[in-house]
Amino acid sequence: MELESGNQEKVGFFVLGFLWVKRFTKKFLSEMVEIAEHAKKIARDDPRKVIHSLKVGLALNLVSLLYYIQPLYRNFGENTMWAVMTVVVVFEFTVGATIGKGLNRGLATLVGGALGLGAYHLSSIAGKPGEPILIGILVFLQAGASTFIRFFPRVKARYDYGMLIFTLTFCLVSVSGFRSDDLFELARERLCTILIGASACVIVSIFVRPVWAGEDLHKLVALNLERLGNFLEGFAGEISNSTEAKEFENDVQFRVGVNGILDSKNREDILANLARWEPGHGQFMYRHPWKQYLKIGNLTRQCARRVESLNSYLIPKTQASENNDMIQVAFSNVSSESGKALKELALAIKTMILPSSANPHITNMKIASGNLKSFLKSDFCEDTNLLEIMPVAAIASLLIEIVICVENIADAVNELASLANFKGRNSNGGGRNSSKRQCRIFDQLPEDEIPHVISINEPTLTRSQTI
Amino acid sequence: MELESGNQEKVGFFVLGFLWVKRFTKKFLSEMVEIAEHAKKIARDDPRKVIHSLKVGLALNLVSLLYYIQPLYRNFGENTMWAVMTVVVVFEFTVGATIGKGLNRGLATLVGGALGLGAYHLSSIAGKPGEPILIGILVFLQAGASTFIRFFPRVKARYDYGMLIFTLTFCLVSVSGFRSDDLFELARERLCTILIGASACVIVSIFVRPVWAGEDLHKLVALNLERLGNFLEGFAGEISNSTEAKEFENDVQFRVGVNGILDSKNREDILANLARWEPGHGQFMYRHPWKQYLKIGNLTRQCARRVESLNSYLIPKTQASENNDMIQVAFSNVSSESGKALKELALAIKTMILPSSANPHITNMKIASGNLKSFLKSDFCEDTNLLEIMPVAAIASLLIEIVICVENIADAVNELASLANFKGRNSNGGGRNSSKRQCRIFDQLPEDEIPHVISINEPTLTRSQTI
Repeated sequence: MELESGNQEKVGFFVLGFLWVKRFTKKFLSEMVEIAEHAKKIARDDPRKVIHSLKVGLALNLVSLLYYIQPLYRNFGENTMWAVMTVVVVFEFTVGATIGKGLNRGLATLVGGALGLGAYHLSSIAGKPGEPILIGILVFLQAGASTFIRFFPRVKARYDYGMLIFTLTFCLVSVSGFRSDDLFELARERLCTILIGASACVIVSIFVRPVWAGEDLHKLVALNLERLGNFLEGFAGEISNSTEAKEFENDVQFRVGVNGILDSKNREDILANLARWEPGHGQFMYRHPWKQYLKIGNLTRQCARRVESLNSYLIPKTQASENNDMIQVAFSNVSSESGKALKELALAIKTMILPSSANPHITNMKIASGNLKSFLKSDFCEDTNLLEIMPVAAIASLLIEIVICVENIADAVNELASLANFKGRNSNGGGRNSSKRQCRIFDQLPEDEIPHVISINEPTLTRSQTI
Repeated sequence: MELESGNQEKVGFFVLGFLWVKRFTKKFLSEMVEIAEHAKKIARDDPRKVIHSLKVGLALNLVSLLYYIQPLYRNFGENTMWAVMTVVVVFEFTVGATIGKGLNRGLATLVGGALGLGAYHLSSIAGKPGEPILIGILVFLQAGASTFIRFFPRVKARYDYGMLIFTLTFCLVSVSGFRSDDLFELARERLCTILIGASACVIVSIFVRPVWAGEDLHKLVALNLERLGNFLEGFAGEISNSTEAKEFENDVQFRVGVNGILDSKNREDILANLARWEPGHGQFMYRHPWKQYLKIGNLTRQCARRVESLNSYLIPKTQASENNDMIQVAFSNVSSESGKALKELALAIKTMILPSSANPHITNMKIASGNLKSFLKSDFCEDTNLLEIMPVAAIASLLIEIVICVENIADAVNELASLANFKGRNSNGGGRNSSKRQCRIFDQLPEDEIPHVISINEPTLTRSQTI
């Protein structure tokens, strides 16, 4: 009997153990599958990330040759490891970041090493007992000063890594001088291996499927403009023909999209900083006006804040009336024309062609906005109270602000086009200039005198309708 | 004659050279003065930056002792330099960043070193000719895989540095194994010196005037709320009593302030990530709900966007009329009460006391908002056209949205208070609960039934006035 229960216990333990192992394996496997899917998604979204990983492996193997090939190893000995270290630390995703870090590291090692040697020789005058004290004081002063300089915003943006390596090299050379016999040789060998490592990074980064920070910035700014244009066109569509079924899905997409634009400032700043390290490539010359992209980006975000507010006021379909219908047409016109203008501007940036094709839309947008204003001046709100027409007023006011934003964006894109020498559509700039002149003419007219001409495809709203 | 002209030429060159040196010296000196003033400003704005710089110097001198003291140096020899390197690279401004980097570096060195040793032994089985090829393949695979893993957003946020050091150590150990005799000893010594360096950083960082990322986040979120409250109170003041002389200066201050709030997302995210590495300190326990601060920060930015829009619609004083005066009082009430509520919420966060003192302002704010709505429902816009009353409608709509934002912020702060166990004002939580209950009662009432009670100091606006 006892033997049997003992056996049963063993079987019980075995079953429990088996179940635990099974559950653990299942959980482990499902987690692995999840991670693999996540990795697959990242790779599919941006295949350049996979290529970058392979490039790092390649560069590392290139500098490893210094270890494997005897004549090369004889030159540098143990210091070969600095080449490997440099590759791991310096190789970044974009060419700009790699060049920036490589230059920072190379120059900082040179200057830090030279000053470190100087500090060592200075302190060796003091003789053995005083030497470590003098070195200590110099290290304290140097580390303190360069750590503080790293807080300067301009230094932080471009030379932070350089200041770090400067401190590192200065300390290593001056402190280890206390124990090393041939310090000069040591410093020379390290500098050489670091330069070899940094060069390997820069060469692989530029010549094997390069990822340019400048190009990414260029595309990001154009993409944000395009998305904003799409939202405005979508808003125009929703006003004239809303389908409630799709609303929630659209709303989630909209939130994600607008938040993406609003939160892109940091990324743009980083990319612009990196782009300044890059040599000329493709359509971009060295000293391409990257700062102008930041200006466009800031204006885009200002506009995006208005568009975000716009989304919270959809005119309920139930309140439809004759007045409502007319104002909806006016809203739809302004919104769709500004959306089209933004999309044309985005296309102009993307293709680096003069943004003349946006000008008709900008003109139409201004006319539509003028029409909206004159419509609002009419006795629209008879028999209604303010609370009911508040959404209408809010949308109108937001749309009028958006029109101003779009004009500012257009000016900034035009500025970019002239700074970066965008080409004309038919290789002559006449079209753009004449359209630009047309815009300027409208700018000088008082609002009421803007001719009521609307583009052909849009429902028209002339003054006679509003009276 | 010739001699004289030669002399004149010499004198001319001398004068020119003197002028050039003088101008250069002047320019150099003025630039130095400018940099010194900039440095002074940075130091005055945040004296912790100066202290941090001195702390780095101190930590570097501490680990330099490994070089200077003979018995210590005998232990580690040349590998002592890894301690110096670790201090320069790991010592960051906040405790959280230092601990995070130190842990990342320590663990990654341990794991990378162990795997590197494994890779070296595995490849040494292949024998001399095949060894470098096998090492090369392993390095390629490892570097590729860990570089790719660094793109995972979660890894990037917390373990990016660890993955870098993992690759670094793996490559150094496995590749240099090809040339080194006692690889195990080398790896052990490096690990020890790195741990010594990282410990020195963490100890100095925690025990000498620590800078806590968590505390910075806590203060930043409270400060942003307070600034927003100030803007809203300022808006209320401007409505009832605008002085044009100060307007431009105020406007610039406002722009800088609001942009500061809108652009703070990145900083908050970084600080929250760092705070999670920190041990309990002061009022903050380990596992303090840092994520809740991000939630409050996001809601603050949503509110700030409305406040930004609000600033572009100041009702011109010239359009004053009886209706205008009344609506201005209503605006002023909503704006000032929501401002006060935000400032009380900020104070509650700052002092970590239950936010019960904000509840009366929230109640008043809701009442004022209800009054505003009922006022708007009345026949306000007789005889006027929409364009004229558009600013009024826009301000009203923005203020009503701001009220909702403030309520959401209050809820989030209450959630934080319960998650982080904020103390009651008189060490009992009764006051807060009863006020909270009062709010909830109002929540359930339809808007029209909210009693028209306004706080004593504010100009009142009851329904009878609006009819």
